[in-house]
Amino acid sequence: MSGPNCMISLINVFTVDPANQHRLVELLTHATDEFVCRAPGFVSSTLHRSLDGRKVTMYAQWRSIEDYESMRRDPEPLPFLEEALTIASFEPGMYEIVRTFTPTDG
Amino acid sequence: MSGPNCMISLINVFTVDPANQHRLVELLTHATDEFVCRAPGFVSSTLHRSLDGRKVTMYAQWRSIEDYESMRRDPEPLPFLEEALTIASFEPGMYEIVRTFTPTDG
Repeated sequence: MSGPNCMISLINVFTVDPANQHRLVELLTHATDEFVCRAPGFVSSTLHRSLDGRKVTMYAQWRSIEDYESMRRDPEPLPFLEEALTIASFEPGMYEIVRTFTPTDG
Repeated sequence: MSGPNCMISLINVFTVDPANQHRLVELLTHATDEFVCRAPGFVSSTLHRSLDGRKVTMYAQWRSIEDYESMRRDPEPLPFLEEALTIASFEPGMYEIVRTFTPTDG
């Protein structure tokens, strides 16, 4: 499934003190709204807040690795991501989808 | 957005030696196909394989926390999950969705 014509999924997990979870959500929302959504090859993303307050995870799909890496080189969203990294640690992950499962009657 | 009537998202990240990534994908596929998909309240899940070989991540949606926890108490899929934990470490995450973003014309 790999190759230049395959969509990729980014699952980026931020770990944060619960007192800063709301601020982290604001920073990632702003960076996505203002910059990431406008980048060539951006397909969609969903921002998640963990129920225990300790994580914020962005699940994103991009047309290609090259499109994602071009966005990461854009200096405009960097101040928001740099502020995010003052309050959170960041575990990136770049994936391909193996399979999607739906409910089965037993 | 929290509460008993809200769907929840599970983002469970497994870290693995690249030599074992394929076996881990097999174990999680089998447990999902045979057991998880049949559980009450299961909505959908997508299995991801990291391009660097070091992670396998399951993104799943459930009708409620209670439904997910009932499935986790089921002894039937346990042998597959226990074998998975002999070759991988497991970082669970339980989330609510903050927002979904779509492309914006610049």
